[in-house]
Amino acid sequence: MVEEKVNTVQSEVKELGKKAKEAALKLATLSTEVKNKALLAMAQALIEKKDYIIEENQKDLAEGEKQNISAALMDRLLLNENRIKEISEGLKEIAALPDPVGEIIAGWKRPNGLLITKVRVPIGVIAIIYEARPNVTVDAAGLCLKSGNAVILRGSSIAINSNLALTKTISEAATFHGIPEGAIQSVRSTSREAAQELMRLNEYVDALIPRGGESLIKSVIENSTVPVIETGVGNCHVYVDKKADLEMAKRIVINAKCQRPGVCNAAETLLVHQEVVKDFLPVVGKELIDKGVTLFGCSKTLSLIPEAKEATEEDWRTEYLDLKLAVKVVESLEEAIDHINTYGTKHSEAIITEDYFAAKKFTEEVDAAALFVNASTRFTDGGQFGMGAEIGISTQKLHARGPMALPELTTTKFIVYGTGQIRT
Amino acid sequence: MVEEKVNTVQSEVKELGKKAKEAALKLATLSTEVKNKALLAMAQALIEKKDYIIEENQKDLAEGEKQNISAALMDRLLLNENRIKEISEGLKEIAALPDPVGEIIAGWKRPNGLLITKVRVPIGVIAIIYEARPNVTVDAAGLCLKSGNAVILRGSSIAINSNLALTKTISEAATFHGIPEGAIQSVRSTSREAAQELMRLNEYVDALIPRGGESLIKSVIENSTVPVIETGVGNCHVYVDKKADLEMAKRIVINAKCQRPGVCNAAETLLVHQEVVKDFLPVVGKELIDKGVTLFGCSKTLSLIPEAKEATEEDWRTEYLDLKLAVKVVESLEEAIDHINTYGTKHSEAIITEDYFAAKKFTEEVDAAALFVNASTRFTDGGQFGMGAEIGISTQKLHARGPMALPELTTTKFIVYGTGQIRT
Repeated sequence: MVEEKVNTVQSEVKELGKKAKEAALKLATLSTEVKNKALLAMAQALIEKKDYIIEENQKDLAEGEKQNISAALMDRLLLNENRIKEISEGLKEIAALPDPVGEIIAGWKRPNGLLITKVRVPIGVIAIIYEARPNVTVDAAGLCLKSGNAVILRGSSIAINSNLALTKTISEAATFHGIPEGAIQSVRSTSREAAQELMRLNEYVDALIPRGGESLIKSVIENSTVPVIETGVGNCHVYVDKKADLEMAKRIVINAKCQRPGVCNAAETLLVHQEVVKDFLPVVGKELIDKGVTLFGCSKTLSLIPEAKEATEEDWRTEYLDLKLAVKVVESLEEAIDHINTYGTKHSEAIITEDYFAAKKFTEEVDAAALFVNASTRFTDGGQFGMGAEIGISTQKLHARGPMALPELTTTKFIVYGTGQIRT
Repeated sequence: MVEEKVNTVQSEVKELGKKAKEAALKLATLSTEVKNKALLAMAQALIEKKDYIIEENQKDLAEGEKQNISAALMDRLLLNENRIKEISEGLKEIAALPDPVGEIIAGWKRPNGLLITKVRVPIGVIAIIYEARPNVTVDAAGLCLKSGNAVILRGSSIAINSNLALTKTISEAATFHGIPEGAIQSVRSTSREAAQELMRLNEYVDALIPRGGESLIKSVIENSTVPVIETGVGNCHVYVDKKADLEMAKRIVINAKCQRPGVCNAAETLLVHQEVVKDFLPVVGKELIDKGVTLFGCSKTLSLIPEAKEATEEDWRTEYLDLKLAVKVVESLEEAIDHINTYGTKHSEAIITEDYFAAKKFTEEVDAAALFVNASTRFTDGGQFGMGAEIGISTQKLHARGPMALPELTTTKFIVYGTGQIRT
């Protein structure tokens, strides 16, 4: 009986994969005009079907209440008229972005006359495994469609009714406007087996992007045979150099920690050069504490900020995603770089300094997706970088690193024009 | 006892990983000059230590004889003075290639004054798992060093003495010339456990490139948690369109099949439009058979080439890597495209035609790394494309597609220059 159920789930996912691959081959050659019209129709459909979507969302909220999930999670789950409008606007923004498909990235002629061109094309079929927020369903579908990819969405079970309603709404609008069936699909089964099957569907799926917390990412890396683009975890540092403008440093530290503590580009550890600790730490410490931040400090920090708690080795590794900050006094720029390369997650790292050579050394020697000189780590974001809507922030080194927007959802093909050349 | 051995192997591989990561951080900031001098010194050392290398190679050859391995494999294993000279020359060529590290790929200023730059940097630690040929040891080490990466090499057990001798020779020369220790390492253990450990060393290894046959690639994809760049398998097609220059088509088919049948960019299936089969198939069939090629044909092919054997479904899927060719008559360009998208491995695909729209449709709708119009599939190669020495040919869509040379061994980091910007 159990085995039978597993088989059904596997064949459901396989069927989605097959349909998606067929759709992908057609999507790859669609004009920008068709894709944009479909995106605008999808935006319109969300508004028209808002009552239906809210009704389905209510089922998830009721289930959430029954399961006694946290208020924060309930809030992330909620869809109301305003939020649906925002999601709809997001699709219009994607329609307005340039289409990456078809760009000739490079081209050259060989001595034998072969003309080699490297052309941007869609990846094909992209699977997204994500948590809670139903808006990801539409954002991801919109970005994948614009970049010519078919998408298979697998959200968390608690949002299943909302996700299916959103998928139904936008995929119907899309197919009505010339997008092939199978371009936008959600996995109906919320079972673990469905996710497992999706992660091993190499025959049909070209790339898998997990969006969520550390444990989701870890599970995907552990279990997926489909190529994965790792996103998310950010244990980010701000290093205040001995030559820092301390007023600027304070402003940036407060911003990097407090402006939105629950996101991956918020600062989690403050490193301060020993030559400026006396002038800097008591002042910034007071302001952080006033803003509700709990500090976890090294022994020198504790001597200057009595309210701080003692940091353990674990604190240097922790992505708090909360109003908590680890604080460490370092003896040199080298120690700061070494600390970051040891404990960081290669996401976003900042140095505050007026020293040209310190800035150069920091940005060259710290291994991370984004390095900031005299700016907040909070800027690591597709929109803030001016790249347009993002599908996630890659913390791996292959394919894409840092914010991923439309071009990062493409690959390339070589098209070679000859006149009968053979190899000798 | 067995468990103890496994633990020893695991800690050996882990130790290599740790050393490689430390080396990678230093390698990332080395000047091109230092890297080039080291490459030339490595080339020199191979010549100086050739007796030692040949002596160690003899041990592998003796073992190979004892194991009764094939003549082809024995030949691939063999190192003699000439081959060592060739390998040494390869390093000099790598030294002469431009250094990809440090290139600013893109840069722009944001309305808030932030200057965003996207800079090419090494990937970090690259692991290579490969089969038989000892020259891969040196090629891969050279390419990784030039692109600023530390490399961990894991060749096949039959070549272990040769590989260790080559690694010792070049790594000693490299460290003597300022390359950090740990930049070039080979795994000493030839056990399965060592390979398994390497595939799961996410803490230290940034990317894994398997080089070898289908079963090696499959095993790596199945078992690796480290991001993989898939290489190699090529079930390539030549499609002869109804508007083809048949003389040119014949020349290209013969070249694509016969010039070097054992490699991934050789043609494995010939597709011919039904309107030209009568003029084309008997002629090309005879020439192929004269060159020793066995043909496996569809029923129409059999009626025109009596010597051909009957093709089964399996033949459309097979990468023969041999003087064998599947032949199918198709009713239309669409059928050819469909056949390739169904059975191909997304490597290299060619159309022979004088029809502009057929060429356009084929190159747009066939999903592969390299599409050729009126040229042989045998050109899919880093050197032939003018990209310099290649580390492999990617058949996946993430990170790199097609021949991978030095730039494909890099990633990027964003370096953002501010003047105190915070996010509001």
